[in-house]
Amino acid sequence: MGEFRVIEIKEEILSDNKKAAEALRKRLKDEKTFSLNLMSSPGAGKTSTILRTIEHLKDKFRIGIIEADIASVVDAEKVNAAGVSTVQINTGGFCHLDVGMVLPALEALDFSKLDLIIIENVGNLVCPAEFDTGAIKNAMILSVPEGDDKPLKYPLMFSVTDVLLVNKVDYLDFSDFNMKALRERVCALNSDITIIETSAKTNVGMKDWAEWLAQEVRQFQA
Amino acid sequence: MGEFRVIEIKEEILSDNKKAAEALRKRLKDEKTFSLNLMSSPGAGKTSTILRTIEHLKDKFRIGIIEADIASVVDAEKVNAAGVSTVQINTGGFCHLDVGMVLPALEALDFSKLDLIIIENVGNLVCPAEFDTGAIKNAMILSVPEGDDKPLKYPLMFSVTDVLLVNKVDYLDFSDFNMKALRERVCALNSDITIIETSAKTNVGMKDWAEWLAQEVRQFQA
Repeated sequence: MGEFRVIEIKEEILSDNKKAAEALRKRLKDEKTFSLNLMSSPGAGKTSTILRTIEHLKDKFRIGIIEADIASVVDAEKVNAAGVSTVQINTGGFCHLDVGMVLPALEALDFSKLDLIIIENVGNLVCPAEFDTGAIKNAMILSVPEGDDKPLKYPLMFSVTDVLLVNKVDYLDFSDFNMKALRERVCALNSDITIIETSAKTNVGMKDWAEWLAQEVRQFQA
Repeated sequence: MGEFRVIEIKEEILSDNKKAAEALRKRLKDEKTFSLNLMSSPGAGKTSTILRTIEHLKDKFRIGIIEADIASVVDAEKVNAAGVSTVQINTGGFCHLDVGMVLPALEALDFSKLDLIIIENVGNLVCPAEFDTGAIKNAMILSVPEGDDKPLKYPLMFSVTDVLLVNKVDYLDFSDFNMKALRERVCALNSDITIIETSAKTNVGMKDWAEWLAQEVRQFQA
């Protein structure tokens, strides 16, 4: 009984959020500010990937970072130390970001003066996939130690993602992860997705990732 | 505005669920059926740990398994192949289990005839921590590749857990994971927790884990 009540309210909230997301995307387009919503499980390498992305792109674009966590500011401190503007959102009990949470953070960053904003979502493969953040593109990271069966279990996340980084490829030698099986499972859900194999630790694939992102920002601003 | 509305409804649901959980624990006590709620991020090793647990305990106890996933039956098939009764719950969009979802699965298992039921929750470090499943004890798995900073970011999960398995210790040599820092962070949140270092892959620590669990079941049934 309680279950059905949740679903109804969720749909109402999702619908309001979707409208707000479309309005936000229009504002971002007017200001030529590209935003990327970065999602993954806890510990898949979101913050390390953001740090590498800053290294590769900080001379090309004016970058801002939004960090979201249930609690703590550890990620925001790391990113801020890399020399870019950072805003931390503490979501309290919330397992996702929505436009209502992202918008004040964008405004705190003075987003119209930036080219690229990366939004690090809460570490979670479920809820963030359901809530549009108003971002221009969605990226997700799957790390090799999580296993190649994740598209079977979390299909929505893989369906809403524009680019998938398969991170921690430095673990491939110690793992039974099957990259071919993963690619087939992902493509069955989402044939338009771009897949890049990376290791934020060793920098493998990070140039390809940065080039993909730079290309997206330039197209958006053109 | 939408945000506040969600919180209120969540609290109401949480309160109803808590009452149902207490009633379920009473029924489990009457039937001497111990249940364990097993939580972790996606890919931390819940299913592999369950398979090892079955190996170690299947001659001592009558075991049943409840598998929960957003979608798919891959885990239930694996566990069922190990020769124990298994029920799969597909939660649809839901990122957690609550009593309303667990109870029909327990009844489908005919739980009064079992000694030990392990409930594999949805892979998620956020939502499952908030919803009491009516289980007797909570266990969580943190895998080494996820990093030692997780207690800072997901404090509620570590606070509600009775036993923590630090899994995939076979990755320790290739990782900068600091076990001492992890233990300090966990104990700062929860000084009563039992921490066991494991590798479901290599079987390291699995005997200790099985002994801890067997002891809990025996005490509960006594």
